[in-house]
Amino acid sequence: MAPYALRADLIDPPASAGATCPTLSLVSRSPDWVAPGLTRKTAAFLADRPQTPCLVVDLDVVEDNYRQLRTALPEAAVYYAVKANPAAPLVARLIALGGRFDTASLPEIDLCLGLGADPGHLSYGNTIKKARDIAAAHARGVDLFAFDAEEELRKIADNAPGSRVFCRILTDNTGAEWPLSRKFGCSPAMARDLMRLAGRLGLDPVGLSFHVGSQQTDPTQWHHALETCAGLFRDLRADGLSPSLVNLGGGLPTQYGRPVPEVGIYAEGIRAAVDRLFDGEAPRLAIEPGRGLVGNAGVLETEVVLVSRKDAGEERRWVYLDAGRFNGLAETEGEAIRYPITTDRDDDGAGTGPVVLAGPTCDSVDVLYDKAGIRLPLSLTAGDRLRLLSTGAYTTTYASVGFNGFAPLEAHYL
Amino acid sequence: MAPYALRADLIDPPASAGATCPTLSLVSRSPDWVAPGLTRKTAAFLADRPQTPCLVVDLDVVEDNYRQLRTALPEAAVYYAVKANPAAPLVARLIALGGRFDTASLPEIDLCLGLGADPGHLSYGNTIKKARDIAAAHARGVDLFAFDAEEELRKIADNAPGSRVFCRILTDNTGAEWPLSRKFGCSPAMARDLMRLAGRLGLDPVGLSFHVGSQQTDPTQWHHALETCAGLFRDLRADGLSPSLVNLGGGLPTQYGRPVPEVGIYAEGIRAAVDRLFDGEAPRLAIEPGRGLVGNAGVLETEVVLVSRKDAGEERRWVYLDAGRFNGLAETEGEAIRYPITTDRDDDGAGTGPVVLAGPTCDSVDVLYDKAGIRLPLSLTAGDRLRLLSTGAYTTTYASVGFNGFAPLEAHYL
Repeated sequence: MAPYALRADLIDPPASAGATCPTLSLVSRSPDWVAPGLTRKTAAFLADRPQTPCLVVDLDVVEDNYRQLRTALPEAAVYYAVKANPAAPLVARLIALGGRFDTASLPEIDLCLGLGADPGHLSYGNTIKKARDIAAAHARGVDLFAFDAEEELRKIADNAPGSRVFCRILTDNTGAEWPLSRKFGCSPAMARDLMRLAGRLGLDPVGLSFHVGSQQTDPTQWHHALETCAGLFRDLRADGLSPSLVNLGGGLPTQYGRPVPEVGIYAEGIRAAVDRLFDGEAPRLAIEPGRGLVGNAGVLETEVVLVSRKDAGEERRWVYLDAGRFNGLAETEGEAIRYPITTDRDDDGAGTGPVVLAGPTCDSVDVLYDKAGIRLPLSLTAGDRLRLLSTGAYTTTYASVGFNGFAPLEAHYL
Repeated sequence: MAPYALRADLIDPPASAGATCPTLSLVSRSPDWVAPGLTRKTAAFLADRPQTPCLVVDLDVVEDNYRQLRTALPEAAVYYAVKANPAAPLVARLIALGGRFDTASLPEIDLCLGLGADPGHLSYGNTIKKARDIAAAHARGVDLFAFDAEEELRKIADNAPGSRVFCRILTDNTGAEWPLSRKFGCSPAMARDLMRLAGRLGLDPVGLSFHVGSQQTDPTQWHHALETCAGLFRDLRADGLSPSLVNLGGGLPTQYGRPVPEVGIYAEGIRAAVDRLFDGEAPRLAIEPGRGLVGNAGVLETEVVLVSRKDAGEERRWVYLDAGRFNGLAETEGEAIRYPITTDRDDDGAGTGPVVLAGPTCDSVDVLYDKAGIRLPLSLTAGDRLRLLSTGAYTTTYASVGFNGFAPLEAHYL
């Protein structure tokens, strides 16, 4: 988010087919940025040519993102979505900053608690939890749980009696580059019934949550969901409940190829919607950024293993890297998320040509960008290095245990 | 492959939309099979209710598959594609049987050698290799390498001088349920040039390889590729080379929902094509089964975490399991591979209803079967167990290091 000042008129330009490799704009606002996607610290670390593939994350950027979000939306408690990058140094930094944590599982809860997080600062935000994991979380002091179904609510009532619960509702995800399916949430009508049931089961039905879709580049998407929440709040109050919390979920974007709105634009939109919709009884807010806090803090360094053509007459080359779908770059699936790319040879004057970018495994699915119209230097050859920018989120964590014998993605936190 | 005798007229029936959950037919030919997908050993192991999710593999089934393939196609050296399941007990069993190994990386090579494999029985079959990995493999005694590009060939010549090399050619993958892209292989014209170059570089250009696509249910697909190889053999002999090896690649299927041809049908077709196409100078053959050797040897046991509806008026339930796309079931991507499913409640008489099957993570991509028309018992509830059959291949190996905090898939080899 916003290491660069972006002009509002640059938001969401149409993707130009066959364009050159997308690059981050460089309108740096911080002296720590020395090149698009690179801070002074990451650049210095990479200058020592660490073993590839590896991810390098500058925690100061994470901190900067966190502070910007707190400044822009001080009324929202920030629960970092641990799944985006569960590295201990990163979680520890956020604990030091007073951050809270959205956790998906008991191991994530234990990670946070082991690093000193206050259990009262944790949300068990997965709507899919085993009864024994709910009980274990409750025993550790966690008392805030998500749900979207009656069976889940009864599990929580039985295994974490008296806890605070919030119901996730289904929303429309138009505008997200990585849209969520109907996997999470229930209809508003069902949410109303379940919130009342929660009260009858002895739980504290504190509020509602939603998710507008990951990498949400349209700040107005929160409005629609907030409208639904406001209506439900009115209904629930009419039912005699006292809902007080709206969890805005995740969705804050990081900058990949295309500029994204600054966090302040999202904050202003959310604040205006809350003021307008909740009849003067503004709810407490929570927000669960993952990508938005850590995405642009990371650089993935990779080595070119092979450059080839499938036939002497073909213009387009295949460039095979030592990082692929199964050791860090899972989010290239569908080519929706296009990491900006730089190479050792960007300035050698030899020109660029079209490429297919692929990973190192024997798996045909392990192709990163085929239709994205990527162009790379014509001089590129095995042994060269290539950097994928804005790779701090959802890279290490998706890596396989060792598909094809390739180790998981190594990571360095600076 | 083929624990059940399948009738040829059952091959590839049209998929019926909205059908019930596919099941394996039970025409067992071995006394070890006690139910579809379950052997006496796996059934006994699962009766003890091991912690879920877990994979249970009966190595006797792997051995049976190996022996059937050797019997059906004795003229082909069998190189097990280690990537399908690199478990040490499985590799050790195949070493004991005299198996050879198709390896994708130096760690896979070291795994095999560490278990006592003869380096002369290994093929470094990945066409994408770092120069230093080629050198390391060569130093360990590996002398058979795949290539499909000039740059790769030069790396091999420099780092494994004098080695045997085979060129992978591009083929058409019609008929495969998990088709390969153009990621591997080069055009036959380029293959001819590169084989000649290999000779000039001091390498031994022993032959050609291809891949008809994973889970290839059409036995005639090998014919077309063999025709291309035969033509190239003629050209190469005219060029003064002496190619002798055709590597048939992988593609042998395992049985999922739909019956697949028995291995003997593939063998007969391949033998007939070789006899007809190679002008009496039959090449040596190699074959690289992965899924075909281990797929049906495995059962993945999982627990139902939640059963829900998104609205009171919806018929279709969501069934969430403790295994999903990121801890074992990656190959459900696109729903092309449909594992047969059994549950604790299949025979309770309560009937079945339509479901969406999903994994336990907070990731909306972690949905296993949505469009597949799966039906499961109406009585299914959290805590019940569900078994995915024919899951011995490409499950453990694709699992993430711990996405959302969920551990990689545990596996037991019996």
